[in-house]
Amino acid sequence: MSGIEDVARAAGVSKATASRALTGHGYVAAATRERVARVAHEMGYVPSSSAASLATGRTRNVGVVMPYLNRWFFAEVLEGIQEVLLESGYDLTLYDAKPGTEGRRRVFDDFLARKRFDGLIAVGLEPDDHELERLVAIGRPVVSVVAIGDNAGVVRLDDEYAARRATTHLIELGHTKITFLGGVSVTSGPHVDRARLSGYQRTMTEAGLTVTHVRSEVSLPGGYAAAVDLLGDPERRPTALLATCDEVAIGAIIAARRLGIPVPSALSVVGIDNHEFAEMFSLTTLEQSPRSQGMQATRMLLGQLEDPARVAQDVSIQARLIVRNSTAPPPGTPSVTVGVGVTS
Amino acid sequence: MSGIEDVARAAGVSKATASRALTGHGYVAAATRERVARVAHEMGYVPSSSAASLATGRTRNVGVVMPYLNRWFFAEVLEGIQEVLLESGYDLTLYDAKPGTEGRRRVFDDFLARKRFDGLIAVGLEPDDHELERLVAIGRPVVSVVAIGDNAGVVRLDDEYAARRATTHLIELGHTKITFLGGVSVTSGPHVDRARLSGYQRTMTEAGLTVTHVRSEVSLPGGYAAAVDLLGDPERRPTALLATCDEVAIGAIIAARRLGIPVPSALSVVGIDNHEFAEMFSLTTLEQSPRSQGMQATRMLLGQLEDPARVAQDVSIQARLIVRNSTAPPPGTPSVTVGVGVTS
Repeated sequence: MSGIEDVARAAGVSKATASRALTGHGYVAAATRERVARVAHEMGYVPSSSAASLATGRTRNVGVVMPYLNRWFFAEVLEGIQEVLLESGYDLTLYDAKPGTEGRRRVFDDFLARKRFDGLIAVGLEPDDHELERLVAIGRPVVSVVAIGDNAGVVRLDDEYAARRATTHLIELGHTKITFLGGVSVTSGPHVDRARLSGYQRTMTEAGLTVTHVRSEVSLPGGYAAAVDLLGDPERRPTALLATCDEVAIGAIIAARRLGIPVPSALSVVGIDNHEFAEMFSLTTLEQSPRSQGMQATRMLLGQLEDPARVAQDVSIQARLIVRNSTAPPPGTPSVTVGVGVTS
Repeated sequence: MSGIEDVARAAGVSKATASRALTGHGYVAAATRERVARVAHEMGYVPSSSAASLATGRTRNVGVVMPYLNRWFFAEVLEGIQEVLLESGYDLTLYDAKPGTEGRRRVFDDFLARKRFDGLIAVGLEPDDHELERLVAIGRPVVSVVAIGDNAGVVRLDDEYAARRATTHLIELGHTKITFLGGVSVTSGPHVDRARLSGYQRTMTEAGLTVTHVRSEVSLPGGYAAAVDLLGDPERRPTALLATCDEVAIGAIIAARRLGIPVPSALSVVGIDNHEFAEMFSLTTLEQSPRSQGMQATRMLLGQLEDPARVAQDVSIQARLIVRNSTAPPPGTPSVTVGVGVTS
């Protein structure tokens, strides 16, 4: 394998110049930099990253901490992050921090403290006070997708808005019995579900309608199970469901089909996400793009690494309503027929 | 922040002893090692990882290369890998290598060449010759989930067996018109789909039945789209479908429901995976556990790191048939009634 001496010799420059050209630290004329880089590439020279890190104090590595790897939102955010890091020549070190596990404790107490990264991206992390303290103690820039605290940059969906918009859509269609499916309460559980539940509750209350909330595990099978219970009981059955996310909404649609309840004529269902399955289930939803949130967060972090004086930003995204075929006026609403034999 | 001198002083040992105790290199009495570790933890001392890497030549980092992050199989494998690495104190650096992208080229030509890991786990990678050469050139142990070549350890499902077992299940129920849904051909496309298609073809041919293969993108929406085309045409419609994986099978069940074709009375569907949605759709399937495959592969790699002389293993897993309610005898089969008013 070629060393930096070999590269320097082949490129006709000193070892110091070759080193400056390849690390990007110190002045080298652009043409020289390009020649050295080309020669290094041709010779298969790759700098020892440990030595490079000691020399520059930079690892060219970004840490990503997330509580789930196998959920749509998180996997999409991760793909967005990975895409930007690859383009920028950064490695991605992944830390899985499932709530309430020993593994999570070790991530915060041991792994992150090794500081094997220039900066950190926290995705839907919901850190407790101790964990937040640990994140701050690392002393590296942190950007989050879904807010974690006051001092970090953040890219987030305006969850309250998304739920308000979805609820308004159902009210405008004429629904009055609208149940929120998912989450725990407005004061406990993950921030995302609290904010969405709160948006629903405020909109319903403002419209003088009764709030009904059914808890559901936030997953497709969770939505299915909760909806089977709810829809199987004609006394409790609403004419519309607002689900905390598309996976729960799709679970509810599958449950309705199983129970022989036609969607949307007997039951409207609306979600939040625009999940990859949303179109297949003709789901009306509020669209967010987790992939582009991951990309934005990564660009924000890389910007801070380039210029540490840069102020952390707070980017809030308003979801867009996509109306498909899972929402309609409630049963018993007189049809509005337009232009077909109307004689008036 | 505390340095190793502070830790040594507080623990009442020399700096050299503290260093040996914390890196695990060289002899230190067990009691001393524990005391130093406790003091270091209390003082928040964390060794500089770049310096530690230079000293030991080990990074305590494992690289994971996979083509998809947002598919069930890959996300589950990744969770299994992460779990074992966390327990063992290893970092995980993730390399996303989507087929045919510039990002993948950079992963193989630039990122992996930096060797920022002690070993590599390749998941469903299907490397071409150039990529395989690159992997070998790295000179670090490689273990794969789904085989990549001859010289690496591997944990894999016996895909041919899984498809044979699924096909046999359908034949035993009395089906003769069985279509394979998914994959490209037995000679092109990903190895997994080729092996499954081959298992199906051989079993059908041995039984004297006609092979019919319909291509499908390997995803839930892909299975849905391909099944809508196939099932919508009464001439081509089989009485049973073997899908290359559960996501394709579930897409086909959703398509059948949309078209008003009852499953399993008019159409049997069997998958391979036991995906997290399989139970919700009552899907008969061949079970594999990608999470435990990820864990096994990681333990195999860590074993090789401990003992480089260890011979690479090839672990082949036979999937187990789980019969649920998506498979039944074909329509028109006389019912077998057991013990209900049988007078004979």
